[in-house]
Amino acid sequence: MPSYRAPVDHTLFLLRDVFRMERHAGLRGFADATPDVVEAILREGARLCEEVLQPLNRVGDLQGCRRGEDGSVRTPDGFADAYREYARGGWMGLSADPAFGGQGLPFVLSTMMNEYTASANVSLGMYAGLTMGTIAALARHGDEAQKRLYLPKLVAGEWSGTMNLTEPHCGTDLGLIRTRATPQTDGSYRITGTKIFISAGDHDLADNIVHLVLARIDGGPEGTRGISLFVVPKFVPGPDGEPGARNGVSCGALEHKMGIHGNATCVMNYDDATGWLVGEANRGLNAMFVMMNEARLVVGIQGLALSEVAYQNAAAYARERRQGRAPTGPAEPDKAADPIIVHPDVRRALMGIRSFNEAARALVVWTALQSDVAHRSDDAVQARDAQDRLGLLTPVVKGVLTDMGFDNVVAAQQVFGGHGYIAEWGMEQFVRDARIAMIYEGTNGVQALDLVARKLPKDGGRAAMAFFAELSGWAKAHAVDEGLKPFAAPLAAGLDHLQQATLWLMRNAPANPDEAGAAATDYMHLFGRVALGYMWGLMAQATLADPELAASPEGQARLALGRFFMERVMPETALRLARVAAGSRATMALRPEQF
Amino acid sequence: MPSYRAPVDHTLFLLRDVFRMERHAGLRGFADATPDVVEAILREGARLCEEVLQPLNRVGDLQGCRRGEDGSVRTPDGFADAYREYARGGWMGLSADPAFGGQGLPFVLSTMMNEYTASANVSLGMYAGLTMGTIAALARHGDEAQKRLYLPKLVAGEWSGTMNLTEPHCGTDLGLIRTRATPQTDGSYRITGTKIFISAGDHDLADNIVHLVLARIDGGPEGTRGISLFVVPKFVPGPDGEPGARNGVSCGALEHKMGIHGNATCVMNYDDATGWLVGEANRGLNAMFVMMNEARLVVGIQGLALSEVAYQNAAAYARERRQGRAPTGPAEPDKAADPIIVHPDVRRALMGIRSFNEAARALVVWTALQSDVAHRSDDAVQARDAQDRLGLLTPVVKGVLTDMGFDNVVAAQQVFGGHGYIAEWGMEQFVRDARIAMIYEGTNGVQALDLVARKLPKDGGRAAMAFFAELSGWAKAHAVDEGLKPFAAPLAAGLDHLQQATLWLMRNAPANPDEAGAAATDYMHLFGRVALGYMWGLMAQATLADPELAASPEGQARLALGRFFMERVMPETALRLARVAAGSRATMALRPEQF
Repeated sequence: MPSYRAPVDHTLFLLRDVFRMERHAGLRGFADATPDVVEAILREGARLCEEVLQPLNRVGDLQGCRRGEDGSVRTPDGFADAYREYARGGWMGLSADPAFGGQGLPFVLSTMMNEYTASANVSLGMYAGLTMGTIAALARHGDEAQKRLYLPKLVAGEWSGTMNLTEPHCGTDLGLIRTRATPQTDGSYRITGTKIFISAGDHDLADNIVHLVLARIDGGPEGTRGISLFVVPKFVPGPDGEPGARNGVSCGALEHKMGIHGNATCVMNYDDATGWLVGEANRGLNAMFVMMNEARLVVGIQGLALSEVAYQNAAAYARERRQGRAPTGPAEPDKAADPIIVHPDVRRALMGIRSFNEAARALVVWTALQSDVAHRSDDAVQARDAQDRLGLLTPVVKGVLTDMGFDNVVAAQQVFGGHGYIAEWGMEQFVRDARIAMIYEGTNGVQALDLVARKLPKDGGRAAMAFFAELSGWAKAHAVDEGLKPFAAPLAAGLDHLQQATLWLMRNAPANPDEAGAAATDYMHLFGRVALGYMWGLMAQATLADPELAASPEGQARLALGRFFMERVMPETALRLARVAAGSRATMALRPEQF
Repeated sequence: MPSYRAPVDHTLFLLRDVFRMERHAGLRGFADATPDVVEAILREGARLCEEVLQPLNRVGDLQGCRRGEDGSVRTPDGFADAYREYARGGWMGLSADPAFGGQGLPFVLSTMMNEYTASANVSLGMYAGLTMGTIAALARHGDEAQKRLYLPKLVAGEWSGTMNLTEPHCGTDLGLIRTRATPQTDGSYRITGTKIFISAGDHDLADNIVHLVLARIDGGPEGTRGISLFVVPKFVPGPDGEPGARNGVSCGALEHKMGIHGNATCVMNYDDATGWLVGEANRGLNAMFVMMNEARLVVGIQGLALSEVAYQNAAAYARERRQGRAPTGPAEPDKAADPIIVHPDVRRALMGIRSFNEAARALVVWTALQSDVAHRSDDAVQARDAQDRLGLLTPVVKGVLTDMGFDNVVAAQQVFGGHGYIAEWGMEQFVRDARIAMIYEGTNGVQALDLVARKLPKDGGRAAMAFFAELSGWAKAHAVDEGLKPFAAPLAAGLDHLQQATLWLMRNAPANPDEAGAAATDYMHLFGRVALGYMWGLMAQATLADPELAASPEGQARLALGRFFMERVMPETALRLARVAAGSRATMALRPEQF
């Protein structure tokens, strides 16, 4: 059975030493987040994840969700109690507006709790994650009455949320949506249509489920410009605000999935369900993007989270499993064999995973802090710059952390040899669970296109140029620093590749849009490696800035992990640039029927 | 539901145009393999795989194997009939010795049938594959009586075979084996012990099961030098050669696995079972290596096979699924959306998979032909050179084709978006089934070590030097050929990286064996990319040698696939070299308890 310990110490290192959270004390909610409070929150969150959520992870996989004949869905044994404990602990509203019962604490804290939650039990965590996304969308786009009606219940975790986009014939291409909304005289709408792949679409964890649904108002324009967003509660709230009559929405079937069995992935049937418009008519995609962008960060974090828990279990196995001898001679001659952690190839795998995990966590913290600044700063320029960075990094966090995270989970499984393939050891569940993160909330190919075709050229390339300037400045500032040179030099090389690739795109994509598409995935990964390399630079800097830490075994280990990353992962930037610069000719050479 | 069409035309292109099989007409069994016979065999094998084996693939996954209270194992519905049809078709003995009922045809033909079989139904194919491995081991190391007793039944497919190596506490490190063999006065042995992860350990497909079992004879030396090989039939054959009394061997449990559910992976209990020594006492590992090396090729082919069938289904989906518009403008303006094959990022994925598949198939054909030459040539030097190449390429085929094959199956699943995660579409089964190939028959880390620490230095590096010389000669010969330059130049660059990495190992590994271990996996992948690049060179050469073919849509498509590979995959050799040359310092820096 796998185990899990939340990496609180590394999180605290990032918040305190690397990103010095106290610098943001002027932001709303940050003053309350004193170092003691932050540590207490993270340790309490860790305990909940380790002791309550993680023990249910395997039963969730084995039992899955079950749908009754009436369409009601039962979650695996123990999920409901655990979810209520999570809600009672105030985790759903940790960073939500106090006006609606939230604690108003920094978003970066609930983000770190998201990581721990997904490591412990990604299926169970998704119910909470979708609720938090619903809170964010209604807080931004709901009217006052909607906020008053839904937010307190959602923040308290008494009600939960979902997002309904996909239909059988359309996923990425939301302009094809067929679900219809017919206006009623009382200002509400009748919603009819079928949505698929609806995570947490029905369950027994909460008293009510608040569906956010994309639909087309009768007579609305074709394509994405005719899509509106509706709130459709499972039970229509009565005048007292409590769940009332059953609405015309139900789970028609549960999908049989590769993993995340504990999460109910539903076909949702809307049959004259009553819904209310959220935000402006025909501007539903814009409103939904709030939820989607937050969800993309959460999904990116899932890539890290599963990589982390898989790493922890692989490392434990490698310390215990005895097989063969160290190539340099027996490490424990009195035993029949050495633990396999003596083998360099096993080390290579573990170092690769861990050096990613620590950099990815840093990138998540950094990105979440941008979100805090963007949404809580009173300084317009500061907020704009943070928003730029958040927009730029969101597809990178989603696409790169889930791709690399999945590869890492597979590598961790490999450490177990044959036992990694056997269900009882739990590693194969991590692989199956991690796989979805590359797909949902926009496939990673869509993330890459978002980065290349939307985020990069936006505002004349302002966000990317600021990002490049920041990294370039750091690399130059530390180019001759003996301790940081092993970080600054590879980062400068990687950044040069990234800038070359960017230039290549600017030169070639306008004349032939296929060039952007053929380059997108490699460009995104090039971007991601550079961003992660920068995180290692910052972590090394924070380590070396404290001579005691730098000399400690912990500091030495961190610097070695960073060097491993710079030596073994950063050279990939040249490969990615070569692929970008290869262009689209060979890629597009075949006729469709030749595939 | 996934479908499958065996790539017979590409196989024929390789056998005829690329490797010109007729050059080997002097080898035993090759004279019978005229072009017409070869094509007829491949087409009949393809039919069997497409029509009989493939339709059972999903039911095998859903039902899995079931163990009765008496330890007997039932395979999924339809498997027994299909297996008998396979056996009756003579496929088990296609390249086996005619003296025992085989057809004596080239090994390369049964190898290609192995690919088709694994694409269609890898779980079902494994029962046959293990039987073929048992045939090979007994043919090489059994005594005359054993051959007469077992081979005709195995070749006819009436009996099946297994290999029993792993025990709960030992997989890679076979020196730790505890299963004991006690000599009896009649020359037989009593075998007692527990083996785990025994594929096809029990089932209802054959009248008898012939277990090849590694065990330690009482009082034998410690470690690998005390391991002997035994044949232990499930039913002890009577004087008439027919299955007689039940032996003391049974399936104690079935493993719950991530995939290959249709194959019975058994815990096998040997309880005073009667067995007979195969080959010399205490030389069991050598005898088992015959079976293992053959099995490693078969497993490498599984990587290709699953990549192929996943590709075919992803390509079909991409031609049908409509979503969005081509970046260069609507391809089918009269439809609501274009098929997703218009998107360059989808193309990138498909081209990547297919350009691997074709090169991997070429490498498999080439390697299998080396096996034919090694075992069937009367020219000692020719046989030795072929044996060199076979030994060198076996870990590369196993390790690289299963790693890249798995990545490709994941990429093919990605083309399906959310539908790729849903069981009904079949793609997630391919991922789960493909995962095991990286683990069994020696994890890919073990393959890498076999290549670096054993195959490379063997006989003063003779095999590797000959391989490098061949590739270098080809690259030089075509360096200024306009058509082949796009292949020769990247191949020369890749080969240069491979030779630099080899030199680096020769210089650094002797002083510190950790250097070989830390470099091994990247070295193996570097080697694999170069070998695959050479295959593209040969395929391009054969295409361009026939002006009509070169000008045809098929020839143009093949050249584009090859260019894609050279432009996008070959640059990876620089990355792999950089990782090799990074050395082991950072890799080995942490103390075990720091992980």
